[in-house]
Amino acid sequence: MITPAKERFLRCHFAIPRLGEDHAIAIAGAVVSPRSLTLPELRSMPSVIETVVTECAGNGRAMLDPPVSGEQWAHRAVSAAQWTGVPLRSVLELAESAVEVVFTGADGGQYQRSLPRDVALDEGTLLAYEMNGEPIPARFGGPVRLVVPGWYGMASVKWLARIEAVEKPFHGEFQTHKYVYAPGVPVTRIRIKSMFVGLPGHVRTGTPARLSGLAWGGEGVLRVEVEIDGQPHEARLFGPALPYSWRRFELIWPPQATGRHTVACRATDVAGSSQPDEPEWNPLGYGMNAVQRVEIVAI
Amino acid sequence: MITPAKERFLRCHFAIPRLGEDHAIAIAGAVVSPRSLTLPELRSMPSVIETVVTECAGNGRAMLDPPVSGEQWAHRAVSAAQWTGVPLRSVLELAESAVEVVFTGADGGQYQRSLPRDVALDEGTLLAYEMNGEPIPARFGGPVRLVVPGWYGMASVKWLARIEAVEKPFHGEFQTHKYVYAPGVPVTRIRIKSMFVGLPGHVRTGTPARLSGLAWGGEGVLRVEVEIDGQPHEARLFGPALPYSWRRFELIWPPQATGRHTVACRATDVAGSSQPDEPEWNPLGYGMNAVQRVEIVAI
Repeated sequence: MITPAKERFLRCHFAIPRLGEDHAIAIAGAVVSPRSLTLPELRSMPSVIETVVTECAGNGRAMLDPPVSGEQWAHRAVSAAQWTGVPLRSVLELAESAVEVVFTGADGGQYQRSLPRDVALDEGTLLAYEMNGEPIPARFGGPVRLVVPGWYGMASVKWLARIEAVEKPFHGEFQTHKYVYAPGVPVTRIRIKSMFVGLPGHVRTGTPARLSGLAWGGEGVLRVEVEIDGQPHEARLFGPALPYSWRRFELIWPPQATGRHTVACRATDVAGSSQPDEPEWNPLGYGMNAVQRVEIVAI
Repeated sequence: MITPAKERFLRCHFAIPRLGEDHAIAIAGAVVSPRSLTLPELRSMPSVIETVVTECAGNGRAMLDPPVSGEQWAHRAVSAAQWTGVPLRSVLELAESAVEVVFTGADGGQYQRSLPRDVALDEGTLLAYEMNGEPIPARFGGPVRLVVPGWYGMASVKWLARIEAVEKPFHGEFQTHKYVYAPGVPVTRIRIKSMFVGLPGHVRTGTPARLSGLAWGGEGVLRVEVEIDGQPHEARLFGPALPYSWRRFELIWPPQATGRHTVACRATDVAGSSQPDEPEWNPLGYGMNAVQRVEIVAI
């Protein structure tokens, strides 16, 4: 499932810059060859397409800006897109001394984030210039943005203007003071999570109902359980299993008794982590991945 | 690339029916067990997701109904969607005597199409009930439609109401009089085709330009050549290679001379067929798959 642009969530810290075709990215610092990378140069390199699920680290605490009425909570700040771009490691040769790479957006020069050396050089990390087969709209980071699969959205710096390799860990505002669970505990990869999609408003006893949804996480989805009135049932995963995207799950449930039932979905990732029953509180409200519970009436 | 619903093409022969949750599909004729299949029954079966490119057999002759202004020709009557559904062969056990299966839509009962036995039982042929992760909108055939990957759109009967296995070839209006290249020569699988997407309006000498697009066909895409002023160049295929979807292609072209250049794209399918230079005329204007030529100015 790909999220169309008009339904994609939007979260920026500064004003959206309007960059022209003459925009270029400076590659600087502890690199073998400092240079300027133009848009035509970037597009002239062999490209790849990745389907990537992006979740805002603040998803789950009503942080949408601007707010959108009428949509389900869970749709708001998580989405999937097909990104066309060039692996960062195709344009970036780091010096031995480089420990991190700092990315600066063109939105006033204030939004900066770093990635550890190994993540910057991971084959999945992209300089993306197309979203869903079209030039990336300005509001989503065009003409060129970083895409870091598996990480919360704050890592995927939009309107990319500068890539600088550094020899000491970076301590910018959005690295050290924001996007931390606690001082010194940064928000990084997406925690395992799942949500129902298109649940029926009510169900009928004796008629099988389909409980279906999406599961995702930075470590990949191993399994999803759907709990009905507290009893877990193994859901079936189906559809494409792409490395950086979400999985569909479904459980067929034949309700036996009329009245209210509580259904919940709980995903487990490849590393063995499962969604908690309750949110793990943290001061800035990041990484909320508690199990979703929904009441369904059987008639 | 998935086409959002609002950009998907629309072509119907009759009025769009509005069917409720009590809609059921009759399965009849030369089958082992005639039955009625309800929507809850269908959804309670193991589902699959297929990304399928659908092209209208009349694409290329300005047949769009209603016409949409301002979009590129090639965008109009070809699109890709992710369909969730149940393989038809999971619900259909044919008698030995069945040679074809006739599908009837609920749009007044007049739109009927048949498939040969082997195509009806192909693992790709779906009874679909979701498009791009949501219930299929009525205008695109919901609540349930047939999806026949690799075939022009007329085969994928919308608002499916009846599935009847027959012991003689079917000769309905839309089988025999329409959707034929000539009497007795039916329109079937999608002919190999390609189109540019997002071509630059002009290019600059000395700056590499990216010529990119989409290629598709019922037999699968083997290769794409981009011709520049008559000289063919092998394009690079990239992105996901899904069995029923289209492929992206790209060629990086460093224009040498200012002035007008003609660029063209020509795909070849796995069976060895290539797009012709000129459309193959036929009385009803189906299966147009001539090479697309576009003029680009280098400055």
